[in-house]
Amino acid sequence: MLPAGLVASAVVSASSANLGPGFDSIGLALNLCDEIVVETTGSGLKVIVEGEGAGQVPLGPEHLVVRAIERGLQAAGASAPGMLVRCRNAIPHSRGLGSSAAAVVSGLAAANGLIAQTDSTPLTEAQLIQLSSEFEGHPDNAAAAVLGGAVVSWVDRGGPAPEYSAVGLRLHPDIRLFCAIPEERSLTSETRVLLPVEVSHDDATFNVSRAALLVVALTNRPDLLMPATEDLLHQPQRASAMPASAEYLRLLRRLNVSATLSGAGPSLIALSTQPQLPGEAVDYGAAHGFTITEMAAGGGVRWSPGVTVRS
Amino acid sequence: MLPAGLVASAVVSASSANLGPGFDSIGLALNLCDEIVVETTGSGLKVIVEGEGAGQVPLGPEHLVVRAIERGLQAAGASAPGMLVRCRNAIPHSRGLGSSAAAVVSGLAAANGLIAQTDSTPLTEAQLIQLSSEFEGHPDNAAAAVLGGAVVSWVDRGGPAPEYSAVGLRLHPDIRLFCAIPEERSLTSETRVLLPVEVSHDDATFNVSRAALLVVALTNRPDLLMPATEDLLHQPQRASAMPASAEYLRLLRRLNVSATLSGAGPSLIALSTQPQLPGEAVDYGAAHGFTITEMAAGGGVRWSPGVTVRS
Repeated sequence: MLPAGLVASAVVSASSANLGPGFDSIGLALNLCDEIVVETTGSGLKVIVEGEGAGQVPLGPEHLVVRAIERGLQAAGASAPGMLVRCRNAIPHSRGLGSSAAAVVSGLAAANGLIAQTDSTPLTEAQLIQLSSEFEGHPDNAAAAVLGGAVVSWVDRGGPAPEYSAVGLRLHPDIRLFCAIPEERSLTSETRVLLPVEVSHDDATFNVSRAALLVVALTNRPDLLMPATEDLLHQPQRASAMPASAEYLRLLRRLNVSATLSGAGPSLIALSTQPQLPGEAVDYGAAHGFTITEMAAGGGVRWSPGVTVRS
Repeated sequence: MLPAGLVASAVVSASSANLGPGFDSIGLALNLCDEIVVETTGSGLKVIVEGEGAGQVPLGPEHLVVRAIERGLQAAGASAPGMLVRCRNAIPHSRGLGSSAAAVVSGLAAANGLIAQTDSTPLTEAQLIQLSSEFEGHPDNAAAAVLGGAVVSWVDRGGPAPEYSAVGLRLHPDIRLFCAIPEERSLTSETRVLLPVEVSHDDATFNVSRAALLVVALTNRPDLLMPATEDLLHQPQRASAMPASAEYLRLLRRLNVSATLSGAGPSLIALSTQPQLPGEAVDYGAAHGFTITEMAAGGGVRWSPGVTVRS
C-alpha cells in the first residue's frame, strides 16, 4: 500500500490510429497533449477534469484515468488508499484523436511516477504498450501515445491472451501534419460495427501493399504518400456514418493531399510535404465546420514523480 | 525495323515474391541469374536454351523471352526482322523463384539494349516494371527483378488498365538469405486457385500489420523478422498443395528461423541474422530433398548493347 502524499504526473499525446491502409496497426502521435497529476490520499477518490470532457466524463472509479492508474499500480504490486486526480485535457473527445488511449496511457504512466518513489520497478515501455492496448483492444493509438511519433503495432493472438507490440518509425522531416477536426462527434464502438466481417482477398492484398508502402513513405519517400494512404478496409465502410468527413476526404484527395480518417473519424489527418493546404481545401473546411490545425508529431508519454510543469 | 546484326544482352536475378505477409507486394531479388543474348537477324527466329528449362520450354515465338523482347521493341516503336536468342538459365523453373519474371524482364531489358543502338529512347525502370508486371499479373517478382534487392510493389486498378509501381528498400546488412529448393515443382497458376476469394477482416488486418512490420524489419529491425514474416493470406492455404514445404516451413519457424514460402512455393526462403541455419534445419532439409543455399540479395537487371561477359 502506497503512503498518502505521493505525487506523480504524466503528459501524453493525442494520436491518429488506423492511418490510411494501416487499420489497427499504423498510428501517429500528435502534439496535442493531456496532462494529469495524481496524489495519493488517505482514502477516497476525487477526480477533477479541466478542459475537454469537463462536466461530461464520469468522475468516479469508472473514470478511465483512474482505472489505468489502478491497473498500473496493480501491475507493480502496489495500490493506493485514496487518490486525488487532476486532468487537464486538450485532446477533444470522440473525434478519432485517441483521447481514450491518452487517458489510459497517462494513467499507467502516472502510476509509474508513483511506483518510482517506492522499491518497486516501474513498467517498461513494452508493458505500457501491452497494458494500454488491453484497455483499448487495439494497439495503434496506445503505442503511438507511449512511443510518440509514427508507429507500426501488431497483435499476437496465438497465446492465451493477446500480446501487443509496436515499433517506432523515424518520420521523414518533410512531412507536415494538418488535422481537420469537425464539431460532430463519433464513437469508435459505433463506427466499428460498420466494418464487414469478411473482405475480398483482393482488397486485403490492396491494403497489404499500401500498408507496406506507407512505412516507406512515412520514413523515406513522402512523395509516395498519395498511393501509400489508399485504403479499402475501413474508410469506405465508414463514409455513410460520417458523410461530411467522407466528402471532405474526397475533396482533399482530389486536390492531391494525402488525407485519411484519423482513427475511426470523424477527424481527418492530412500528411503533406507542402507548407499549407490548398486554398480550396482550407475554404471548404472552414465552410463546413472543420477546425484545421497544423500539428507536429507528438512525443512519447512522459511521467515523473512530483508535479511537472508543462514546457 | 531494326537492321540485322545488332546484339544486346541482359542479366537478371531470381526473386522471392509474396514475401511472408506481403502477398503480391513484397519481393526480394536473389543473386542467382539468368543471362540472355539476342541478335537481330534478317528473318526467322532461333532460340537456344542452356541450363534450366533446356529441352522443356518452347523454342518458338511463344517463348517468354521472345515475347518480352518483341513487347519491349514494340513499346519503343521498333521491331526486328528476325532474331537469334541465346538463354543461359540458372534459375530453376516452377520453384517459386521468379524464373518467368526473370525471363520477361531480361527480354524487355535486352530489347532496351537493341533500342539503345537506334534513335529511340530505351524504356525507363518504371516502364520495365509496368510492362513486365503486365506479363505477370502481379508486380512483386517483376519489380524485384528490375530494381534488385527488396521491393514494395503495388497496383493501381482505378484506371482503364492496371498500373504497376514499386520502390526499393535498403536491406539491412545483417540479414542473410537461405534458400531451400525442393526437387518437386509447382505452377503458380495451379497454386493460386487455392486462395480464397474472401478472407476475414481480422486476417486482412493481421497481414496489414505484419506487412508494415516487414518493411521495418527488412530495413532497420531484423530482430523483428519472426513476427514480421507471419502470414494468414496465402501460406496456410497453400500448405495442403505442398505438404513437404509446409512441414519444413513449420520446423524452421519452430526453430526461430523467419522462413516463408518463396513466391507460390514450393521453395522456401529464410531470412536470418545468424551465419547459418540451425543444424536440425540443415539435416531435415537434406533428408527431405531440399537443396539449401545461402544467397546474397540480387542486383537489378543489367542490359547492354553487345555481348556482356558475366563477371
